Amino acid sequence: MKQSMTFIPTLREVPADADTKSHQLLLRAGFIRQNSSGVYSYLPLAKKVLQKIETIIREEMDNAGAVEMFMPALQQAELWQESGRWYSYGPELMRLNDRNDREFALGATHEEVITSLIRDEIKSYKRLPLALYQIQTKFRDEKRPRFGLLRGREFIMKDAYSFHSNFDSLDDVYQKMYNAYSAVFRRCGLNFRAVIADSGAMGGKDTHEFMVLSDIGEDTIAYSDSSDYAANIEMAPVTAEYEAKNEEPKSLEKVLTENQKTIEEVSSFLNTTQDNCIKSLVFKADDQYVLALVRGDFEINDIKLKNLLEASVVELASPAETKEILGCEIGSIGPVNVQKDLEIVADYSIKSIVNGVCGANEENYHFINVNPERDFKVSRFADLRFIQEGDASPDGNGLIKFAKGIEVGHVFKLGTRYSEAMNASFLDENGRSQSMIMGCYGIGVSRTLAAVAEQFNDENGLVWPANLAPYQVHVIPVNIKDEVQKELAEEIYQDLKLAGFEVLMDDRQERPGVKFADSDLIGIPVRITVGKKAAEGIVEMKVRQSGEIIEAEKSQVSQEITNLLTV
Amino acid sequence: MKQSMTFIPTLREVPADADTKSHQLLLRAGFIRQNSSGVYSYLPLAKKVLQKIETIIREEMDNAGAVEMFMPALQQAELWQESGRWYSYGPELMRLNDRNDREFALGATHEEVITSLIRDEIKSYKRLPLALYQIQTKFRDEKRPRFGLLRGREFIMKDAYSFHSNFDSLDDVYQKMYNAYSAVFRRCGLNFRAVIADSGAMGGKDTHEFMVLSDIGEDTIAYSDSSDYAANIEMAPVTAEYEAKNEEPKSLEKVLTENQKTIEEVSSFLNTTQDNCIKSLVFKADDQYVLALVRGDFEINDIKLKNLLEASVVELASPAETKEILGCEIGSIGPVNVQKDLEIVADYSIKSIVNGVCGANEENYHFINVNPERDFKVSRFADLRFIQEGDASPDGNGLIKFAKGIEVGHVFKLGTRYSEAMNASFLDENGRSQSMIMGCYGIGVSRTLAAVAEQFNDENGLVWPANLAPYQVHVIPVNIKDEVQKELAEEIYQDLKLAGFEVLMDDRQERPGVKFADSDLIGIPVRITVGKKAAEGIVEMKVRQSGEIIEAEKSQVSQEITNLLTV
Repeated sequence: MKQSMTFIPTLREVPADADTKSHQLLLRAGFIRQNSSGVYSYLPLAKKVLQKIETIIREEMDNAGAVEMFMPALQQAELWQESGRWYSYGPELMRLNDRNDREFALGATHEEVITSLIRDEIKSYKRLPLALYQIQTKFRDEKRPRFGLLRGREFIMKDAYSFHSNFDSLDDVYQKMYNAYSAVFRRCGLNFRAVIADSGAMGGKDTHEFMVLSDIGEDTIAYSDSSDYAANIEMAPVTAEYEAKNEEPKSLEKVLTENQKTIEEVSSFLNTTQDNCIKSLVFKADDQYVLALVRGDFEINDIKLKNLLEASVVELASPAETKEILGCEIGSIGPVNVQKDLEIVADYSIKSIVNGVCGANEENYHFINVNPERDFKVSRFADLRFIQEGDASPDGNGLIKFAKGIEVGHVFKLGTRYSEAMNASFLDENGRSQSMIMGCYGIGVSRTLAAVAEQFNDENGLVWPANLAPYQVHVIPVNIKDEVQKELAEEIYQDLKLAGFEVLMDDRQERPGVKFADSDLIGIPVRITVGKKAAEGIVEMKVRQSGEIIEAEKSQVSQEITNLLTV
Repeated sequence: MKQSMTFIPTLREVPADADTKSHQLLLRAGFIRQNSSGVYSYLPLAKKVLQKIETIIREEMDNAGAVEMFMPALQQAELWQESGRWYSYGPELMRLNDRNDREFALGATHEEVITSLIRDEIKSYKRLPLALYQIQTKFRDEKRPRFGLLRGREFIMKDAYSFHSNFDSLDDVYQKMYNAYSAVFRRCGLNFRAVIADSGAMGGKDTHEFMVLSDIGEDTIAYSDSSDYAANIEMAPVTAEYEAKNEEPKSLEKVLTENQKTIEEVSSFLNTTQDNCIKSLVFKADDQYVLALVRGDFEINDIKLKNLLEASVVELASPAETKEILGCEIGSIGPVNVQKDLEIVADYSIKSIVNGVCGANEENYHFINVNPERDFKVSRFADLRFIQEGDASPDGNGLIKFAKGIEVGHVFKLGTRYSEAMNASFLDENGRSQSMIMGCYGIGVSRTLAAVAEQFNDENGLVWPANLAPYQVHVIPVNIKDEVQKELAEEIYQDLKLAGFEVLMDDRQERPGVKFADSDLIGIPVRITVGKKAAEGIVEMKVRQSGEIIEAEKSQVSQEITNLLTV
């Protein structure tokens, strides 16, 4: 492709409102332009990268046994009403009326459409399992679109759905999808982790998020420094075991702690350590209140608490509720002398405490020399705290570290969440009607493009991995008005195209400095500069990533590119 | 692909609401399903055909020098307000509000988006011309969606836009696009014509529609029986020349023609021929009335009248308006004795009339022995009538025939319609600011799929051309429970895949009749039946189109397919 024929509007300045590397560089290198908040045009270079990512995805989906199809963006409200999501999805679901005033959703995802399609056509276990996917534009009216393609309102997604007659079959396809996703992101060159995630309100069982490690990520990942274990910080179990400190129990004593409320304040005031304090919090679990305890140097993980209590919703009680139950402000509460009907649950870390400190349920007073079991009863001990850096990895290998991650993929065992709501059933081997068991699997295609840009760049611009680069070779005649240079550049351009390379040639009448700066910005793996030695048939070849420069005779160029790209 | 792994829900019955062959067969063969009126899911087989059509389009667009990109469906109302189409497009443009109550259109087409993109980035003639295209989902809220994919509300389109600094450059790219479109539809095997079309209210100059000939088409095409001339019937000029009949003029005479109003009635009542009558009609051209005449055996073409009068809008005057101007009902009007300020224009065919008949502008009376120029003055003679079957082709080659056509493509010289409205200008060689000159070029991708299905079928189902077929080979073991058949089928399936064929294998436990009927319905070019002679390594091969059947030894199968597909 000659640059005069295509559309690569590069920018010298960093756009004011672009806040991440990928957003800045994709704008500056002429890959994307914003049309409105969270809505982008993919210019020719970005389209080429998207196609390469999509090809990788298609190959891995085919390997996993999934079949491609294409569903509509316009989705009747009735379908979303059947699943209930018409009401629960909120303002993120874009909605419109047609000319006959019928309501539609713009597809944010396609569980409803695929479930209705399969429900209408598949009646027997003999036709299951089935895994279908599409690559398609999705619409979500994000409250705060940002980071360019990373959080947009219109974006490209690969979504897949599987249907099963039993859970073993779901497990099997889930594993194939997990493997396919790992292969996709590995082939994209991304530094990622498959992270155990929260199945949330979806009613699902297993779920993994594929997270690209990046400081701009919005989620925190706890991962092992010695294995491939990784989990969302909410989901990582703590395997530490605690024994009571080797210390003689002393008598419980109430002390004045005027205006000392936080663990930091109280421990410092009482000249003790935070790990000697009992952090007490009242939670509301559905309609029940519960007092949850954790050692002062840790934090309660409310998802673990919710799972322990088997509640639908768990949230911290308000100061007013806490005061009504325990008679004082949040900073002074504790487990000693509470009414019998308030259940006390505790993280295992509480077991280490001997002669500890806790609130006295009386403004400005704390107890010291508190000893669990002697001074208060715990109804249930459990793993209730957030994992921390330095904790043992739950898989027994290594220690936990934290990282930020950008979610690029998600595999999810849906179970019967949609098939039950929408009546998608089949007849099993015994002729009995059963709800189909489902899985769903998503990859953010345009987000993956941005994630690659976020991980592959330097101070001069983008640095594409060879297999995703919009072109593999960038041919630059230093002076296009010099006939010798122009001819040699043209010859090399044509030869390389014939040899099967994707080649961009900068045939613009621009100063060399502009061409080189644009070339670095765009980030094509190999640059061939046709300059003063053109008369001798010699060009300069430069590797974008390493900066390595060699000279080559024109007949060797093709072979040298192969060598340089496979390094 | 094994049929047990994919989703091909065939139907025995013809769906009640499917009114065309393509709609019926695409439903029955499991290619598509309707989600809501005019909105379809493309199931795996259709997706494969779409991809093949898209590949052909991409290759031809690349040949034509156009570059692929991808623009959003969500388009800010402000852009459409700039072009004015927010107000003129009507209810076909789907609209919605985002969570902040900003108005958006769902892209029905992308002139506004591309013009704003180019306007913001291209400032100099040096960066022109530029031709960009995308393959994308479009939304148009059709009043009457029908014929399945042929007239949908959400559909797949290839749209391209070109930008130029001068009209020669537009002509050049227009011609390349015209050639590319011809190549696309030729490669799709379609029987089509490139038809001269009306540029309508778009302000454009040249425009061609690519029409697939089909009885279900909604447009009438006038084409030559001896050349590739074709035009929308409204656009075809009439080249016939007329001379006055060789007959002595007689005296004008007013006769009673009680209750005779139409040409048929009057000519029959007066015992003359229709070509001896003058058909007179009052039109309103913008704010002026005009009396238009055509010979009784022809019809006035109001687009030609509009072009002659250089009017924006031309429409037939109402009966009330006609009566106010000429004092009588429409069936009795004529050009004799009309007031001087009512301009009389006439089709050339009027020149042939001697001693003709026309209305007397008096209820129940006509004139006979009317002679143009003697009895009334014509201010302008012109080509004002519709072409008819049997007329000479305007290119001088052969005679005109009529056919119905389905529009699958459209190339259009937009000129400065959008660039002026949206301020898309550039600096020319002399540093002067000029409006960019534009062209736009569309192909209905999903509509092309349906058009192919409409042209390629027989009483048993679809009959795909080899290069568009979802698979080239359909392997059918007659009895999948027979181990010998199953193994041979599997061996052939794997061998053919390795040899590079796309193969579908019917591994379902169904009766042979069901499998064969489904196979005919789906329409894959070559079927390989693995039956009783499997033990000898012999299979039956059948060509879907011709019905030709041969037997082949398993080692010859691959070569035989190549032979059969290239016949």
